[in-house]
Amino acid sequence: MSEQVLVTLDREVRDADAPLLYADDLAVVRGDGVFETLLVRGGRALKLEPHLARLQTSARALGLPNPNPVEWREAVKIAEQEWGDEREGAMRLVLSRGRESGGAETAFVTVAPVSERILQARRTGVSVLMLARGFSVDLSASAPWQLLGAKTLSYATNMAALRYAATLGADDVIFVSSEGNVLEGPRSTVLIAREKTLLTPPPDHGILPGTTQQALYEVASDRGFRCEYAALRPADLIAADGVWLISSVTTVARVRKIDGLVLPAAPLGDEIVELVDLAIETAGTEFTEV
Amino acid sequence: MSEQVLVTLDREVRDADAPLLYADDLAVVRGDGVFETLLVRGGRALKLEPHLARLQTSARALGLPNPNPVEWREAVKIAEQEWGDEREGAMRLVLSRGRESGGAETAFVTVAPVSERILQARRTGVSVLMLARGFSVDLSASAPWQLLGAKTLSYATNMAALRYAATLGADDVIFVSSEGNVLEGPRSTVLIAREKTLLTPPPDHGILPGTTQQALYEVASDRGFRCEYAALRPADLIAADGVWLISSVTTVARVRKIDGLVLPAAPLGDEIVELVDLAIETAGTEFTEV
Repeated sequence: MSEQVLVTLDREVRDADAPLLYADDLAVVRGDGVFETLLVRGGRALKLEPHLARLQTSARALGLPNPNPVEWREAVKIAEQEWGDEREGAMRLVLSRGRESGGAETAFVTVAPVSERILQARRTGVSVLMLARGFSVDLSASAPWQLLGAKTLSYATNMAALRYAATLGADDVIFVSSEGNVLEGPRSTVLIAREKTLLTPPPDHGILPGTTQQALYEVASDRGFRCEYAALRPADLIAADGVWLISSVTTVARVRKIDGLVLPAAPLGDEIVELVDLAIETAGTEFTEV
Repeated sequence: MSEQVLVTLDREVRDADAPLLYADDLAVVRGDGVFETLLVRGGRALKLEPHLARLQTSARALGLPNPNPVEWREAVKIAEQEWGDEREGAMRLVLSRGRESGGAETAFVTVAPVSERILQARRTGVSVLMLARGFSVDLSASAPWQLLGAKTLSYATNMAALRYAATLGADDVIFVSSEGNVLEGPRSTVLIAREKTLLTPPPDHGILPGTTQQALYEVASDRGFRCEYAALRPADLIAADGVWLISSVTTVARVRKIDGLVLPAAPLGDEIVELVDLAIETAGTEFTEV
């Protein structure tokens, strides 16, 4: 029996170990589609509504037909049931433009086990390398074709950056703009603390708005944190009272090393983990049509 | 009967209208793989050896196992036979990292009809829009994780740029670096003529080395053309004695309009088309292991 669950948007449960996509699917040959990853915990896909809203934003950036949240909710529900509530899962929503030779979009939901890499990142934190992203923070406003705020299936450079970091012994990457501003991780949002202030780079700097970071900000504001968006430089990370990579499946990974420099233990570490856990369980039940 | 041919690298002829890839193939969910497109003419995939060499270069940039040219030649041969010699075809070689859940790489060859868009571009030329690529020409040398010289399956921004151009009535795009240097098209090499000198931007400016442009340079040198690599600015295109987009399947498309400005007919137009046709039929029979 497969370790994976696969449900197509037409609510069919499929064998994940049978081929699904044609050789000319534009997801395959062009990376031309969008996706979301969600954490399944207790049999439930967390923060589903913000993820569906972001799927719509991404689809719009690529000129794809607007994803119907009703259909996606139903497919997700079936995938949740198939996966069960005994262990966490990593869910993916995938929407591609469909076959080059024509026809409908390709749309499906998968759930797979949470990888050992992710469990390790939660437990021990990560060492990161700062790498040039090549872009200016101003690019996204003037160049919508760069799709900087969209979560596309074209992740080859993200994966290459992670492989590059691995060859130098690092677990993850933080991208820096051509001006030297901190941007994001290839699969995470960068968060820092300065005493009781949380800071993250502004989404209009050409980065993906983080659903987990946004959920955290909602909850942390009620717990006496100031939550801000601000341009950050690498030195701000070194001098911070804690640096974290925040994302949907990993949730929180403390950054314990940047470019080989060991960061002191974050005094707020346990509180951030607790707040994120609370945030992802409670936040984001409202869907905002985009 | 399908209009497409599909042959996997294990030399099996498959039904192109049956699914081939699993939902967790890294080509699908990450655009994590490489490809080549070739023109099939007279039952033969043109410039096969330079394409196989570039497939190896791309694979190396992505840390994929080195493609075995013997295996690819055999799969291509079968695909050529299946396609026949009666009409042109657009061949694609696709190599992905395989399934996220493990196993071998995914590798296959397809042949499909040459699209009406391409036939039109050959006949009437193209109007292009110049769009910012966001990168500096220096980035590729210092940031190998940006994969700027590799032909990856992550083409979402290329496709978005073409869609953006289409909304403004343009057929194609020429990317410009953050310094304002001419780079390349999303699926072509930029070539200009100044009297009997042909110029194209240097590949080390973060662009894909063009197999068709290289074949043309070999042939054109023997016909009294000077063939050079040089940094080009948009004004150089406006002032040139001809601007073309050169690529494997389209072969030559004259640029007849840039950002709405009509370019005069290129005096060398017919000669360039003839030279490219000669070049792709004769050049590139030697394979250079990378």
